[in-house]
Amino acid sequence: MATATTAQTDLVLLMRQMGQKARAAAAALVRLTPEQKNEALARMADGLRKAIPHLKEENAKDLKAGEERGLAGPKLKRLELNDRRLGEMIQALEDVQRLPDPVGEIIEMSTRPSGLRVGRMRAPIGVIAIVYESRPNVTSDASSLCLKSGNAVILRGGSEAIHSNSAITDVLRGALEGTAVPPDAIQLVPTTDREAIGAMLGLEDLVDVVIPRGGRGLIEMVLRDARMPVLKHLDGNCHVYIDEHADLEMAKRLTVNAKTQYPAVCNAAESLLVHRAVAETALPPTLSALIDAGVEIRGDETVCKMEPRAKAATMEDWDTEYLDLILSVKVVDSLDEAVGWINTHGSHHTDAIVTRDHGHAMRFLNEVDSASVFVNASTRWADGARFGLGCEIGISTDKLHARGPMGLRELTTAKWIGLGDGQEVI
Amino acid sequence: MATATTAQTDLVLLMRQMGQKARAAAAALVRLTPEQKNEALARMADGLRKAIPHLKEENAKDLKAGEERGLAGPKLKRLELNDRRLGEMIQALEDVQRLPDPVGEIIEMSTRPSGLRVGRMRAPIGVIAIVYESRPNVTSDASSLCLKSGNAVILRGGSEAIHSNSAITDVLRGALEGTAVPPDAIQLVPTTDREAIGAMLGLEDLVDVVIPRGGRGLIEMVLRDARMPVLKHLDGNCHVYIDEHADLEMAKRLTVNAKTQYPAVCNAAESLLVHRAVAETALPPTLSALIDAGVEIRGDETVCKMEPRAKAATMEDWDTEYLDLILSVKVVDSLDEAVGWINTHGSHHTDAIVTRDHGHAMRFLNEVDSASVFVNASTRWADGARFGLGCEIGISTDKLHARGPMGLRELTTAKWIGLGDGQEVI
Repeated sequence: MATATTAQTDLVLLMRQMGQKARAAAAALVRLTPEQKNEALARMADGLRKAIPHLKEENAKDLKAGEERGLAGPKLKRLELNDRRLGEMIQALEDVQRLPDPVGEIIEMSTRPSGLRVGRMRAPIGVIAIVYESRPNVTSDASSLCLKSGNAVILRGGSEAIHSNSAITDVLRGALEGTAVPPDAIQLVPTTDREAIGAMLGLEDLVDVVIPRGGRGLIEMVLRDARMPVLKHLDGNCHVYIDEHADLEMAKRLTVNAKTQYPAVCNAAESLLVHRAVAETALPPTLSALIDAGVEIRGDETVCKMEPRAKAATMEDWDTEYLDLILSVKVVDSLDEAVGWINTHGSHHTDAIVTRDHGHAMRFLNEVDSASVFVNASTRWADGARFGLGCEIGISTDKLHARGPMGLRELTTAKWIGLGDGQEVI
Repeated sequence: MATATTAQTDLVLLMRQMGQKARAAAAALVRLTPEQKNEALARMADGLRKAIPHLKEENAKDLKAGEERGLAGPKLKRLELNDRRLGEMIQALEDVQRLPDPVGEIIEMSTRPSGLRVGRMRAPIGVIAIVYESRPNVTSDASSLCLKSGNAVILRGGSEAIHSNSAITDVLRGALEGTAVPPDAIQLVPTTDREAIGAMLGLEDLVDVVIPRGGRGLIEMVLRDARMPVLKHLDGNCHVYIDEHADLEMAKRLTVNAKTQYPAVCNAAESLLVHRAVAETALPPTLSALIDAGVEIRGDETVCKMEPRAKAATMEDWDTEYLDLILSVKVVDSLDEAVGWINTHGSHHTDAIVTRDHGHAMRFLNEVDSASVFVNASTRWADGARFGLGCEIGISTDKLHARGPMGLRELTTAKWIGLGDGQEVI
């Protein structure tokens, strides 16, 4: 017990020191030019490129440990640093380098009647903590976005990726030596002890915002204990709704794409709704194509009658993010029912309608209360890079500040500025 | 004890019912046209106009109770509904009516390489709770802004304004009868029991955001107990910094204006910093003008030597929002010291520099970490109406989502929308 208390005190101390280093780094970052930050990003990309064999070795340790712990297919795949993933990480660093620097950007300047010029200017948030699970590419993606937007970052990855994350962070910090960016702009919490997260969440004077990405348990813990604002990245229980006025061939293609193109990620479809008027024509080919692609169907009564290979969905299925080749399928009687169902059972992440009807498309856009809403496109498009944000720090399921894919701009705050020549208020 | 528990259960039940009514009203609001909302706002303005004598009567009860409890001058003044204040409330309702409706506004639409058109669309946040103290005009200002932005609002005013707030809310809800807006779009918590706030802060499924405006104790409580995001409105410990390159006549005018034009509000100056190089020429006339205007000066050693009528400032003074005719005054050695001092002792609300030097102005804008930063203008300009936002729901001291004066736009969320014709992700 005495040991536990000492260990906790040590953790609090460690996290406070990391917070102080981050705060000092943030104060330095706010004064840098875009050129100085881009030079650092270029060196970070070079560093990763040269370290590829080493990064793969370290990643192999995590993969082996994951397999030994029985990590399932798609989840293990998220952990893997193969050539393609590493190439994407390096590419992302170079993409971020080319993106315009958001800091100092002046938006919406206008002249008020008194002659005072009033507008808003983007500024770094300060210190950002990111708590995430699994995917080690987040370590470099998040670092580059925070650096470019002038923020210091404290990273806390999952224990299953500790070797990969440590290796990536060491390479990135090493690359910062000799640049204008202090290496403490990027710090990784060196312990997998979960108490470290709790200690960090009490540092409201040193950490400006915490971004949790991971399972519901982790996010609930962060929401409960954080003394600073939280931008959460919850489940993606994403829906495709095939409207009565859908192009059924397109509906089939988009459903298969949304479900199977990369099932382990949060913007993959987890549930299919079909309007009753087209259920008999739309469902058989769509379900066959899904089953051919290896998808398990969990349907309501109508669906199970129509497709003998479908299993009966339980109440739990409608609220589940499978992250796997499983899809729940339900027949609805109206657009109203579809919208109400999505707003109740969905996770306000990403949902799509397939329809030719303009009025239905507009109602779906207006009334579905989700971060990303699509008409006639795959839910898989909900992605920072695909939206043109360079790369993303995550997909926020919050409504405030940042909703949906978060890029550079979402890592800044906008302060009001007023330029006068002596204006008093009368 | 049994009674207390019953009372608490009743409060939880009451607040949950209010939350459910608000959620239902929000679902109706999202479908309304701008015309329907403007018609409701027009009737609300008419309602207030006809109720002026009644509102004054009810306000007199609050003023009498306030005086009896010994409420001080400027604080009592915040509570008063005189003809000018009532006129401003009605004017604000009419101003909000004329502002463009933010809901459905599509921003930043672009076409991605696949042909998918991607952009963002403003949507209501949903249900907004506002917890505030003193000023009863907030009741109608907040109601109009929430309604126009398609949100249902739950208001919890201070006990000192309960008669005024109840009267205003009754008039506004009455005005909604027979319009397309359900009266439950505007609800006032009918009890001054502080436990009601705690009960409300647990309703994360029914309330999307809570906006506290008031003393530090209230805001700390909200931050600790709220399960939903908080947009806080903390103190304004605002600074005026007279740079070594200042126009000293302008510096005097702006300091007097920032301190005395309306000392009871959060954007009034509470502290003056002066560069040592101009202290001897700038301070005597400035301090004399302030003292002539009834301001008590609390200075550092240099200031007290220069002006015998000044009292010595304590450490506490530098961190204090007086909301009264008191000003702390300090001499600094450099712009760096001024910026560091403001970022440490200020409240990140509103700060101003008086200078002719462009480089110093730009450094102050970039490095002062406050919601509003002014060059050569009074801190009193930090105000939604003066910034052209119509009227404001408050001045956020948060960095995320909304910083500084919050108007209509800050009461919306921006969802991503994607308009396709069958785009899959490959």
